[in-house]
Amino acid sequence: MAAERPTGLKANKGIELLTWGTPNGVKASIILEELKEAYGKDYTWQPINIGRNIQKEEWFTKLGPNGRIPVIVDHDQGGFAVMEGLAILAYLTRHYDPDHKFSFTDPLDVSRAEQWMAWQHGGLGPMQGQANHFNRFTKEPIPYGMQRYTGETERLVGILDSHLKTNTYLVGNKYSIADIASFGWVNVLRFSGVDLDAFPNLLAWWERINARPAVQKGLSIPQKSGFGNETYAQRLKDDKEFVAKEQELAKAIAAAKEQYGYKYASP
Amino acid sequence: MAAERPTGLKANKGIELLTWGTPNGVKASIILEELKEAYGKDYTWQPINIGRNIQKEEWFTKLGPNGRIPVIVDHDQGGFAVMEGLAILAYLTRHYDPDHKFSFTDPLDVSRAEQWMAWQHGGLGPMQGQANHFNRFTKEPIPYGMQRYTGETERLVGILDSHLKTNTYLVGNKYSIADIASFGWVNVLRFSGVDLDAFPNLLAWWERINARPAVQKGLSIPQKSGFGNETYAQRLKDDKEFVAKEQELAKAIAAAKEQYGYKYASP
Repeated sequence: MAAERPTGLKANKGIELLTWGTPNGVKASIILEELKEAYGKDYTWQPINIGRNIQKEEWFTKLGPNGRIPVIVDHDQGGFAVMEGLAILAYLTRHYDPDHKFSFTDPLDVSRAEQWMAWQHGGLGPMQGQANHFNRFTKEPIPYGMQRYTGETERLVGILDSHLKTNTYLVGNKYSIADIASFGWVNVLRFSGVDLDAFPNLLAWWERINARPAVQKGLSIPQKSGFGNETYAQRLKDDKEFVAKEQELAKAIAAAKEQYGYKYASP
Repeated sequence: MAAERPTGLKANKGIELLTWGTPNGVKASIILEELKEAYGKDYTWQPINIGRNIQKEEWFTKLGPNGRIPVIVDHDQGGFAVMEGLAILAYLTRHYDPDHKFSFTDPLDVSRAEQWMAWQHGGLGPMQGQANHFNRFTKEPIPYGMQRYTGETERLVGILDSHLKTNTYLVGNKYSIADIASFGWVNVLRFSGVDLDAFPNLLAWWERINARPAVQKGLSIPQKSGFGNETYAQRLKDDKEFVAKEQELAKAIAAAKEQYGYKYASP
C-alpha cells in the first residue's frame, strides 16, 4: 500500500478533519467522536503526516494559514475552515452541541471553560511542547532548556492537580471541552519527563477521561500515539532497553535541575 | 512615597483590573479603555508588580490560580474573576460591548476572531516570550534558544503580515479584540530582536492601532513599558550605549541562526 499523501479536501458535506495523532490533534478528534456518540453526527478525516510537512503545503495553508494541525472544514457552512484547538472545540460545540452535553449555557460557566481552555492553549500546550523538544528532540543536550520547560510543565500540572482536588472535572463538575483541551497533553505527561504519579488528583482525572469510549476512538485517529501514558507504561514493562533509556533521560533532567537550582513551586 | 503593594481587592462595583505593563497585561487595559471611551464604562485597576511576585501571593492566586497577570474581577457579577487574556477579551465584550463595536455577531466572524486570538495566545505570545527570555534574560548566552524562538517569532509575524496584505484588520476589516490580542506583542517586536520593518503590512497595522487614543491610555497602565516600539526607536536615537548593546544583540542572534542553519520560512 502506498503511503497516503492528501493533496486537498475529500468531502463535500459535514465536518472534515485534517489531523495527526498529537496532543493538539486529539482535541479535535475526541470532541468529534463525542458528538458522534451523543448525536450521531458523522465526520470525515484525513491524516496529515506532520513528519512529511503536508501541513506546510499550499492547499493546507489556504485553510489553516499557520501551517499546523488540527484544522476542520465545515462543508455545511460553505467550506468554512477553523484552525487552533481552542477555536475548534468552541466552534463545534457552539454549532453542534445543542443540548450542551460538552459545553455550557450559564455565561459564567462559559467563561470558566474558556479560561481553562486558554490556560491550556497558552500555557500547558506550548510549555510541555518545549519540554518534549528539549528532552527528546535536540541534537545535543541543552540542560537549560530541559529544566526550564520540564519545570514549567510541572508547575502548570500542579495547578490542574490543585483544582481537581475539589472538582471532578475542570468546570461545573461536568466533563466538557475544558477537560478535552488539557487531556491530550496530560496523556503524554510521562513521555514529557513529568511523573504523573506525583499529581494524584490529575492522575484520577486522566483515568476517568481515558476510560470514555469516545476518547479512546479519538485517540486512535489517525493512529494511537506511541507516546501516550498507557503505551509508555506498557513499554516500561516490556522493553528493557527502553527502561534504560528512560532512566538516562530522568537522570539528565534531574542533573539539569540541579545545575540551575530549580525548585518546584506551584503556582 | 512608599511603593504600593496591593494586598487584596479595593473596589466593590464594576470591573477591577489587576495588571502590569506587559504585552499580556495591555490586552486587558486596552479593551477596558476602549469600552470606557465607547460606552463610558469606568473601571478600577491595581498595579501588580511581577518583579516583586505579588501575583504569586495567596489573595491573588485565589482569583487567578495560574499566578499570572492580567486578571479581572467583575464586582457586578458577585466578584467573578477571569484569568487569561483571551478569556478576558471575550468576557468583557460578551458582557459590556452591546453594540459589538469591538466584537462580532455573525457566528463565522465570532469564530474568525476566536481563531486569531487563540493563534496569538498559543503561538505568538508564548514563543515571543521565549525569544525575550533567551535574547535578554538568561545569565549565560544560549544560542540554540535565541535562534529557535526569534526564528519562530519571525515565522509567526510573517503569517500576520501575509494576512494583513489584503486586510486592514484581522477580522472583517474592523478593529476588534482579535487585533488587540496581538497588538501588545507586536508592540515589543523590536525589543524581541525582530525587525518590524521587514513586515510592512504589519508595521502599518501596528501604526494604525497605536494611533488610537484608548490604546495609548491602555499602554500606560500602570505605566508605559520601556520596551515598546516607540520608546525603543527613541532610545536608538538618544542613547549611543544602547545602540551599541542592541547591535551586539543583533549580531549574537545572527550568529546563533548561522550556527544552527536557521532559514526563514513562513508558514
